[in-house]
Amino acid sequence: MPLFHFKPMRIHLISIGDELLIGQTVNTNAAWMGRELTSEGWIVSGTEVIADKPKDIVDALDRGLASAEAVLITGGLGPTKDDVTKHVLASYFDTPLVMHEPIAKAIEAWFNSRNVPFLEVNRLQAMLPEACTVLPNPLGTASGMWFEREGKVVVSMPGVPYEMEGLMTQEVMPRLRVHFELPTTLYETVVTAGIGESSLAALVATWEDGLPAKGVSLAYLPSPGQVKMRLGVHGPAADRAKLEALIASETETLLQLIEPHVVGRGNIDIAGAVLKLLEAHGQSVSTAESCTGGTVAQMFTALPGASASYLGSVVAYDNRVKQEVLGVPASALDDHGAVSEAVVLAMAEGVRQRLETTWAVATSGVAGPSGGTDEKPVGMVWMAVAGPHGAKAWVHRFGSQRARIVQRASRRILTHLHQEVKNQGALALEE
Amino acid sequence: MPLFHFKPMRIHLISIGDELLIGQTVNTNAAWMGRELTSEGWIVSGTEVIADKPKDIVDALDRGLASAEAVLITGGLGPTKDDVTKHVLASYFDTPLVMHEPIAKAIEAWFNSRNVPFLEVNRLQAMLPEACTVLPNPLGTASGMWFEREGKVVVSMPGVPYEMEGLMTQEVMPRLRVHFELPTTLYETVVTAGIGESSLAALVATWEDGLPAKGVSLAYLPSPGQVKMRLGVHGPAADRAKLEALIASETETLLQLIEPHVVGRGNIDIAGAVLKLLEAHGQSVSTAESCTGGTVAQMFTALPGASASYLGSVVAYDNRVKQEVLGVPASALDDHGAVSEAVVLAMAEGVRQRLETTWAVATSGVAGPSGGTDEKPVGMVWMAVAGPHGAKAWVHRFGSQRARIVQRASRRILTHLHQEVKNQGALALEE
Repeated sequence: MPLFHFKPMRIHLISIGDELLIGQTVNTNAAWMGRELTSEGWIVSGTEVIADKPKDIVDALDRGLASAEAVLITGGLGPTKDDVTKHVLASYFDTPLVMHEPIAKAIEAWFNSRNVPFLEVNRLQAMLPEACTVLPNPLGTASGMWFEREGKVVVSMPGVPYEMEGLMTQEVMPRLRVHFELPTTLYETVVTAGIGESSLAALVATWEDGLPAKGVSLAYLPSPGQVKMRLGVHGPAADRAKLEALIASETETLLQLIEPHVVGRGNIDIAGAVLKLLEAHGQSVSTAESCTGGTVAQMFTALPGASASYLGSVVAYDNRVKQEVLGVPASALDDHGAVSEAVVLAMAEGVRQRLETTWAVATSGVAGPSGGTDEKPVGMVWMAVAGPHGAKAWVHRFGSQRARIVQRASRRILTHLHQEVKNQGALALEE
Repeated sequence: MPLFHFKPMRIHLISIGDELLIGQTVNTNAAWMGRELTSEGWIVSGTEVIADKPKDIVDALDRGLASAEAVLITGGLGPTKDDVTKHVLASYFDTPLVMHEPIAKAIEAWFNSRNVPFLEVNRLQAMLPEACTVLPNPLGTASGMWFEREGKVVVSMPGVPYEMEGLMTQEVMPRLRVHFELPTTLYETVVTAGIGESSLAALVATWEDGLPAKGVSLAYLPSPGQVKMRLGVHGPAADRAKLEALIASETETLLQLIEPHVVGRGNIDIAGAVLKLLEAHGQSVSTAESCTGGTVAQMFTALPGASASYLGSVVAYDNRVKQEVLGVPASALDDHGAVSEAVVLAMAEGVRQRLETTWAVATSGVAGPSGGTDEKPVGMVWMAVAGPHGAKAWVHRFGSQRARIVQRASRRILTHLHQEVKNQGALALEE
């Protein structure tokens, strides 16, 4: 039985547009709205994408109003002929379309300020349902529309992401806060690397079994080489302090149960966690990549401020580059092959010396689809970390798909590096 | 009026998972499936995201079966406790869960091949509904399930994108083709680079206006630095020969209209187009990257067989690396700064010499969010191509978003390289 009692407030999201159905556009609007609304205390009960057809829109509205307190619609409000949403809404709420002169003036001003000709079809965008509250959209020409029925709310917004985001932030969310009494929802995310979902679940099984009784939810969010664990609590606004204490103490327990696998909290990824550690120690890192082909470099440099600790990479795709730029001895390549402990250690030490960094990592493996042998099959990756006290190598197997092998190998070498940087100096002892 | 007549086949997509509802994950699965199914001739009638709750799953199944010929479900099949989909499906199709021994063995083998402990919870993933056709998933541990009811089909797949994509490609789409009589749908895609969507549209305007009357559709698929133009025709299977002739002749016309901007056809991207050209000439390339931080290397090495022409990269994030590994003169860095024509030319020539390749490219820019000045604002990127006849540099501005700047700069330098390799030798004339 949950500790906290409150009425869950549900919201239903409808996106209108063929470009979403045929996959030409990814529905990032629903994800953005899901994040914002969840953090406001809403339960997103469902999201759907439908075609720009009157019957589909009416059915979706019926479903939304039956299952949720509020329904948000995006898309279907452009000036072109294939947008029927406005007409359907007027008929659904049994109200005529009327010209909103202030809106017509605002649209005309919008066109004039951009030196774009103002056409009659644009003026028609100010024909809006009489019974709705019009929500002005300074970022575009399609206004938002706010309808109410028996205490429930339906809002229609344009589908252009930044226009929708502007309307949500400026108009819709503030109005929803006034109209509904929302519960408090808190989330904490713990990021792990180098361990799978089921092994994590086994480590926390007993504790996890007790969570529902405390009113705490736990979700596993896996991606290649990384699993995020998200704790959630929900309760009435008056109980916020209790909810904060609850999620803090459960997060603490979780961190203790899986400590060796934790790389950070919140939105951090493994590259960000490594950079944070390096910065704390005033240290630097460089990379030498063969099979990962620049992906490790790319993971570091995707982060603003990476240049504080990340100096660069040698992507040694060809053996000649391994020898000439990284100084890998020809004998190591001849005797053991490019995918070997000897070569990956020499690559890590070579780039560390060449780029004069505290730490260095290297990868060399068989990414496939061809090039595998019985001894060195597709998916086998050697990786090494070199540091102030020596170097260390590991060999892993990462399945058979090229893109996944590269992704998982890149995350894994960063997980090893994270561990070694965390244990500053303990590296030598393990040699 | 379209030239061809046929019965539309509708398909309904259901994604299960709180991580989608709360926006922690963007629903890329629905977009991928939408694209693939549309190109197979399906009409995607709707997509929805629902919570991992029995009632929501049952309601969505009812809706899907009422509105479409087939329903595809992704997600909700992990080994952890929060996944109820399998149980709901068994009850919906009134069939017990039974142990599928061959699947249990395959899952155990999957864990063994990865040196990951096989747990009882993983074995339970082989408990599957008796009445379904189990679709083996070699890429993971959750099997696909294929159900039939009154000629309609329901398929359940895991939500991990590459597992879903593997199952769709290997099992689901081939089986759907056998089960349903789909209209013939043909697509031809022309890939362009270095030109925007509206400029392309202006080049083809007259021709495009005539397409609907011929039953031909045209879609613009823009991504940073690249626009794909996709022509489509749909019709009954009996008309395949006519459809093929139609799309071939329209593709030919399109290619003539936009010739200078075309880098290839089909699924090729600009890196693939460059590799193809290099291979034809028996030439090689290396890269020196500052602001793109390994992304150009990653674009090349993502392609199987890249090692035939792509030798490697120096990711010179730090100026020290530019000097010591690439041999950029200290004076160039001091006099002009790292983001300059002089430095990017020296980087390209340096890496070309160091890695002994026919061609080389280099990038250096301000990726932001910080580091911009009035003279060198965020988004400004210098880039160069060095080849057998000399070197050449360009400067571009790519907006203000770090990830977009990197993506667009990487595509653009490859577009320049493509042009230069295509005009073998003409480079010197333009110096």
